[in-house]
Amino acid sequence: MNYRVVLNILGKVLLVEALLLLLPMAAALFYRESALPFLYTILPLLLLGGGLNHIRPKNSDLFAREGFAVVGLSWILMSAFGALPFVFSGDIPHYIDALFETVSGFTTTGASILDNVELMSRGCMFWRLFTHWVGGMGVLVFIAAILPVSGDHYIHVMRAEVPGPVVSKLVPRARKTARILYMIYFLLTLIEMILLLLGGMNLYEALLHAFATAGTGGFSTRAASIGAFDSVYIDVVISTFMMLFGMNFNLYYMILVGQGVAALKSEELHVYLGVIAASVLVIALNIMGSVGGFAAGLRYSYFQVTTIISTTGFSTCDFDQWPELSRWILVLLMFVGGCAGSTGGGLKVSRVIILAKSYLHELKQLILPTRVKRIWFEGKAVSDQTVRSVLVFFNVYLIILAASVLVLTLDGRDMVTNLTATIACISNIGPGLAAVGPTANYSFFSILSKLVLSLDMLLGRLEIFPVLFLFSPSVWRKR
Amino acid sequence: MNYRVVLNILGKVLLVEALLLLLPMAAALFYRESALPFLYTILPLLLLGGGLNHIRPKNSDLFAREGFAVVGLSWILMSAFGALPFVFSGDIPHYIDALFETVSGFTTTGASILDNVELMSRGCMFWRLFTHWVGGMGVLVFIAAILPVSGDHYIHVMRAEVPGPVVSKLVPRARKTARILYMIYFLLTLIEMILLLLGGMNLYEALLHAFATAGTGGFSTRAASIGAFDSVYIDVVISTFMMLFGMNFNLYYMILVGQGVAALKSEELHVYLGVIAASVLVIALNIMGSVGGFAAGLRYSYFQVTTIISTTGFSTCDFDQWPELSRWILVLLMFVGGCAGSTGGGLKVSRVIILAKSYLHELKQLILPTRVKRIWFEGKAVSDQTVRSVLVFFNVYLIILAASVLVLTLDGRDMVTNLTATIACISNIGPGLAAVGPTANYSFFSILSKLVLSLDMLLGRLEIFPVLFLFSPSVWRKR
Repeated sequence: MNYRVVLNILGKVLLVEALLLLLPMAAALFYRESALPFLYTILPLLLLGGGLNHIRPKNSDLFAREGFAVVGLSWILMSAFGALPFVFSGDIPHYIDALFETVSGFTTTGASILDNVELMSRGCMFWRLFTHWVGGMGVLVFIAAILPVSGDHYIHVMRAEVPGPVVSKLVPRARKTARILYMIYFLLTLIEMILLLLGGMNLYEALLHAFATAGTGGFSTRAASIGAFDSVYIDVVISTFMMLFGMNFNLYYMILVGQGVAALKSEELHVYLGVIAASVLVIALNIMGSVGGFAAGLRYSYFQVTTIISTTGFSTCDFDQWPELSRWILVLLMFVGGCAGSTGGGLKVSRVIILAKSYLHELKQLILPTRVKRIWFEGKAVSDQTVRSVLVFFNVYLIILAASVLVLTLDGRDMVTNLTATIACISNIGPGLAAVGPTANYSFFSILSKLVLSLDMLLGRLEIFPVLFLFSPSVWRKR
Repeated sequence: MNYRVVLNILGKVLLVEALLLLLPMAAALFYRESALPFLYTILPLLLLGGGLNHIRPKNSDLFAREGFAVVGLSWILMSAFGALPFVFSGDIPHYIDALFETVSGFTTTGASILDNVELMSRGCMFWRLFTHWVGGMGVLVFIAAILPVSGDHYIHVMRAEVPGPVVSKLVPRARKTARILYMIYFLLTLIEMILLLLGGMNLYEALLHAFATAGTGGFSTRAASIGAFDSVYIDVVISTFMMLFGMNFNLYYMILVGQGVAALKSEELHVYLGVIAASVLVIALNIMGSVGGFAAGLRYSYFQVTTIISTTGFSTCDFDQWPELSRWILVLLMFVGGCAGSTGGGLKVSRVIILAKSYLHELKQLILPTRVKRIWFEGKAVSDQTVRSVLVFFNVYLIILAASVLVLTLDGRDMVTNLTATIACISNIGPGLAAVGPTANYSFFSILSKLVLSLDMLLGRLEIFPVLFLFSPSVWRKR
């Protein structure tokens, strides 16, 4: 482990967080609230971050191990400091609650412990929804875009932070890749904000909800989430942008450089859109009786399907009251998640495709052992190593799920609550069913359960391994 | 596909079923009930079985494909005919219900659709619990033990019927292996019956419950299952035998031939006993408050843990009322199941071990890619092929689970009912939680759901592939 390079990058992360906190502080000042909660957080960040940033690496060696360590530690530290403004402002008096809310923000989960969300100060609310935007594309990718980083090795850090089974550089240099990603991200957020303004939202809420959509987060300024705006136009705009932010950003890049036709041939995209279309249709038919017709059914179904599969977690109605068929489809979609290279969570569509193909492959192999062919995905043969990684990823995901539910049972809640709360956190969605349904929140859980769910959110966002690594002694050995 | 050899073996299966039906018919006559329901079933079995048995194979080629086809078709046919006595006697008037009960019997699931089990005629009750014994070790293994079968190729058939990721022949010849297995099976059943007689059970119930334990089935003559006998002695005897029948029969063979010390070194055995011990202890502590102390806690906990992990499904109390922690542990044990080469269902302990090791292996490989070693199990290196098979098996198991629940949701029941009913059927356990808890039954499900659950039971007992194969067109192509 090259400790110096790890600490140096951590320093940069803390400095960037201090920088990012200037925005909510400006919002607080604009709305004539106290800037002190932010100042008190920015000062220690500058001190610690500045100190760490002064550690100069003896060499710039940066491999997968260092990448995992940097990403795992950065996200924990960012959340630990990011929780402070909520405590200092009194908006969330208990630190563990504030930590849960911040982890939920950065990991773009959107699970909240707030009983009265609309009472929060405007500065803190800005920070709360802005964390989604920061966490969506990733702070280490952001650093790559704005700061000089140590050459091409930095791709190991980005690989650990960007979701998906395989991270391809758009362009040969990590820095340029990061800039392109953030440019696309910024543009899409801006377009959504403008469309929301046109729908009659005020600037503050349009900006904040665009942040929360872009990161596929799910926090809202309103207790009733997007349902509070009661507008078909806003529902459709947000549904569509949730779907767009759940797509692989490589596709947008390809469209920008004139390879739009090739982009539209993406296998992952077809499956993603196909699953959305089929689910929207089935659920619309299933709920049309109770929401007043097929058109209303489509409206609610389109919103809830895109909010769950993109792992955003906004809501426009209480889908916990829907028939069992619709509820179960939503639970299954919770596992799927967005596309690789999107801001969405979950297993990712590409993993689900590779899983499905590996099952069919295994079956064919059993029937006709002589005619074994490779698994193909997006026009390329998938290596055995990748197939096994994906299988193991899914299985470790389930083990973490089962183990977390075991801890949650100690709180005495029912099985559907425990199960969907854990899935909703590990897949970075937010709302689950029963006691954590879209009209409820996570405040009733014990401190232990909140910590476990926070860990689940981090495991989900960073795709398990960077976080698990921090618990492995062999990672910390010097080379 | 060598159709002639497949049809010939199917003929033998039907003839053997006719033979086996003589036992419950004798019981019916002994208790002065009508023998006609059995006669009416035996006659068509003799006609069809005799006809098929006359088809002489042109060659004795018998490979994995034929093995899967024989086993899949045999189990479906056996169940289809085995359901007839229940209909003819009027004990279960509807054929789909009778089919469900028979599939549940042969697959040693023990899920029942009977609202008033104690009203059943004695002959049919004998058949109902006897199907557990027949299905436990397998009818095709039985045929290998008693009839001349075509040489060593027959191991492909046995491999498709005996549970576990790898089937090792105890001795070089399939026939001798089958005889040894049935001898051990018979002896253990006899010992249990004698111990139950000593505990005050009458001969009829001692024999039938010994059948149901041996096959890890779970049907009982009593509505309150083993709880009806209200005896600590009987609880402990049955718990212990459930645990014993959940162990690999190879171990008993090794003990018989004087390799007892080697047998006790089995890794699978250690994990199996360790999981049982840990679960019994935690649940006993968790429930002791509500059952009147730690000793009573241990009694109930030992029984329910062994009944679930061995996938038997007897009950002595309503564990659906237990605290969430205990309920969740039982749900997790439902997935685990017995050891490979036992009569138990579920994933099998050996698969769970290989899964766990492959996860750890993958993690180590990510941390230190240069130091990759193989996975070892029971002192042997596990091939990549086996690891991938096991991973795929578990995943296909989950997909079948998710898809089945989707169908069950149409009945409008709650998620815990749908989920645990499906797990209980696919793992061949019997009772689940909520509406299919130990004091309830499966009668309320729709015909469609009952058929899906029946299919799940067959998929679980035959470890998925022999049944899935029947749906693949390429299996049926002539070579």
